[in-house]
Amino acid sequence: MSREETKIILSEAELPTHWYNLRADLPDVPPPLHPATQKPLRPEDLAAIFPPDLIEQEMSAERWIPIPEPVREIYRLWRPTPLVRARRLEEALGTPAKIFYKYEGGNASGSHKLNTAVAQAYYNRKAGVRRLATETGAGQWGTALSVACRFFGLECTVYMVKVSYEQKPYRRIMMNVFGGEVIPSPSERTAAGRAVLKRDPNSPGSLGIAISEAVEDAATHGDTNYALGSVLNHVALHQTVIGLEAQKQLDAVGEQADIVIASAGGGSNFAGLAFPFVYERLTTGREIRFIAVEPAACPTLTRGAYGYDFGDVAGLTPLLPMYTLGSGFMPPGIHAGGLRYHGMSPLVSALYRKGIIEARAVGQRRVFEAAVQFARVEGIVPAPESAHAVRTAIDEALRAKEEGTRPTIVFNLSGHGHFDLAAYEAYLAGRLDDVAPEEEELKRTLAGVVPVAEEA
Amino acid sequence: MSREETKIILSEAELPTHWYNLRADLPDVPPPLHPATQKPLRPEDLAAIFPPDLIEQEMSAERWIPIPEPVREIYRLWRPTPLVRARRLEEALGTPAKIFYKYEGGNASGSHKLNTAVAQAYYNRKAGVRRLATETGAGQWGTALSVACRFFGLECTVYMVKVSYEQKPYRRIMMNVFGGEVIPSPSERTAAGRAVLKRDPNSPGSLGIAISEAVEDAATHGDTNYALGSVLNHVALHQTVIGLEAQKQLDAVGEQADIVIASAGGGSNFAGLAFPFVYERLTTGREIRFIAVEPAACPTLTRGAYGYDFGDVAGLTPLLPMYTLGSGFMPPGIHAGGLRYHGMSPLVSALYRKGIIEARAVGQRRVFEAAVQFARVEGIVPAPESAHAVRTAIDEALRAKEEGTRPTIVFNLSGHGHFDLAAYEAYLAGRLDDVAPEEEELKRTLAGVVPVAEEA
Repeated sequence: MSREETKIILSEAELPTHWYNLRADLPDVPPPLHPATQKPLRPEDLAAIFPPDLIEQEMSAERWIPIPEPVREIYRLWRPTPLVRARRLEEALGTPAKIFYKYEGGNASGSHKLNTAVAQAYYNRKAGVRRLATETGAGQWGTALSVACRFFGLECTVYMVKVSYEQKPYRRIMMNVFGGEVIPSPSERTAAGRAVLKRDPNSPGSLGIAISEAVEDAATHGDTNYALGSVLNHVALHQTVIGLEAQKQLDAVGEQADIVIASAGGGSNFAGLAFPFVYERLTTGREIRFIAVEPAACPTLTRGAYGYDFGDVAGLTPLLPMYTLGSGFMPPGIHAGGLRYHGMSPLVSALYRKGIIEARAVGQRRVFEAAVQFARVEGIVPAPESAHAVRTAIDEALRAKEEGTRPTIVFNLSGHGHFDLAAYEAYLAGRLDDVAPEEEELKRTLAGVVPVAEEA
Repeated sequence: MSREETKIILSEAELPTHWYNLRADLPDVPPPLHPATQKPLRPEDLAAIFPPDLIEQEMSAERWIPIPEPVREIYRLWRPTPLVRARRLEEALGTPAKIFYKYEGGNASGSHKLNTAVAQAYYNRKAGVRRLATETGAGQWGTALSVACRFFGLECTVYMVKVSYEQKPYRRIMMNVFGGEVIPSPSERTAAGRAVLKRDPNSPGSLGIAISEAVEDAATHGDTNYALGSVLNHVALHQTVIGLEAQKQLDAVGEQADIVIASAGGGSNFAGLAFPFVYERLTTGREIRFIAVEPAACPTLTRGAYGYDFGDVAGLTPLLPMYTLGSGFMPPGIHAGGLRYHGMSPLVSALYRKGIIEARAVGQRRVFEAAVQFARVEGIVPAPESAHAVRTAIDEALRAKEEGTRPTIVFNLSGHGHFDLAAYEAYLAGRLDDVAPEEEELKRTLAGVVPVAEEA
């Protein structure tokens, strides 16, 4: 491998054999609590909706967890993914920084989501499950799970927020192509959906309602489980193939990461790239900066509180120890639909709490400005979610130019924006607003967050 | 490189250094004729719309033409592209055949079109041209040229068939993101457009009209040239990187192609994969079958005539020696918009005339059936154009199963279908019709084709 290559490519033989479990190195993360008893969650509490292997991974403190061979076999359809040296972007910026991006958009689902979808489908299949139910907002996760279910012969039911179902027909059709059944939520299919429709027959739906429908579907059908696309430990675990590959790729060209950047909605995008580098920092002591980038419209880390909160709006999920804007928080409509989540992965939250990682909130106009600049030199139109990382990588590269430093910047280009072009049109036409929650509203939604008791 | 890999990857150092020019090995292809004089076209006849290097390539009989370093530098953003062993498809079919596909959809434009767009933008830039004008139907070519112009600092004006402009907003926005100016055609910008609008203010436009507008724009502006995305020799030439890479990749795993398959609209998709293998057959004498796949709705090779015909509807272009349905032929509306062209590359036509390649016409229902089957096992949603090759690869693999043979099949998966999902929806909903031209209509449109005089 020459230092001069644009794309750093690994062979399939170099595909990681194990996922990295950060929990092994953060033993003091508080446990999730049962929503009714407020006691630490037991494995059996999750058995109605998750298969045994995933429950074990959710609670495991093993550092390295083997990737099953059938999952690696599917990964080989698109992994290892390229780590690309953004030379043309560096030149355009005139920066002395080196910029690398890990591109996760080159697969059937168009984003990193497929890494965990494949693993979850596999373990559910292994446990004899016939069908998976899930929710989707913008549609990336629903697409990934539809693909993964098809690969392992499972059926897939996706409750899609009704307003997205109507406004984003391409995402819905994509799921249909892969055999997923897509139901606009709220629906008549579940008690949760019927209750909403009774109150408001024209409800546009929300992610919170769709989660309730999918969980109910799974809990009330013996052959059906539920699958979640972010936040939880096992999801973050599966995504670590991203960072593990990136480390090998940097090694191959004799580079070391100084700044690691990824966008953060529920946290799995950030976890996937960053956790292996956190391990590198913990074990080598080498200084690496980490920046989790969130939208100003949904500033979970930068303006939220740390405490116990529900994962959904209805309060049916376990209480998770995390940064949150309050489970009643309704983020304003922005185009990075995948980042509109009130909470944050407990593991990412713990890293932020400990000061190991930084967080930054950015407005969507500057995000799209960076996305267009990136597309025009590097030739990939980023997903709006991924563009948050692009923005911050550019900002850090420009800062390096100002300060005369030469950092190696690595960011996660987690997906393409082929289904988000309406957002680009709005940006190009000057119709994009920067939005952020009011102080008053945050005060109200944060009031319900329960402090973490055992904190020193 | 192990035989067990799913994706056969070349390093950037293995990127071809030269394009292969089939004209060197087909010296008896008749020349194009000047539309007014009917005399063989001279280089200076093309100088108003093409730069010197491209005119030279169009007429060259050199076998190997060097790829300029700045073009290779851009190719490195996404090339070499993977050659993928479709193991999961083979298993699903239960075929003893080996199936490989060359995937050209993983770049900014989403298709193979970028291979020539980059070269054309480079040579125009080198000649001091400031702007390129072109036409686009479905939008793949317009996207590719917008990207390529941006890379080399040229402006790009795309005349987009009005009905596509209105029905495919995502393609238009994609071009805008890359800085292309997109004008619905017919437009007030050109005399050709104004004439059409005067007759029919609500004209939905056609590729023929859009070509006339783009050519007029280039011919009437000293700083502007025209660019074409298929048919011509220099376009086919640039696409041969596809087949040259595929040969190296098969070599790397000790395989040899027995059947080479690609879809054929104007011919550059087929030329790109097949021409280097034609050279292999001519030089080694090894039997290789070639299948050009066209839509039953626009059956240029299988139902057209061989003779001199215009490249456009208005009769402004040179007369090309080719298979054609007649320049007045209006193909019925099908979803593979990129295959709706009345003519065929003179080089591809010559190969067919000589019996070196076969041709096959397929209906769109069976095309989409194959596309969905492919997507569900291999995880890529093909462009409708590319799906014609998928259909035929599957048919040949099933025939091998029946006949107990074990051929190695290689096909060109020339693009993804992310902007064609409305077509998939129509297929899944059973709303797709198979259409083919009437005998009577063909008789009428073929009447204007001029026989090639010097034929033995």
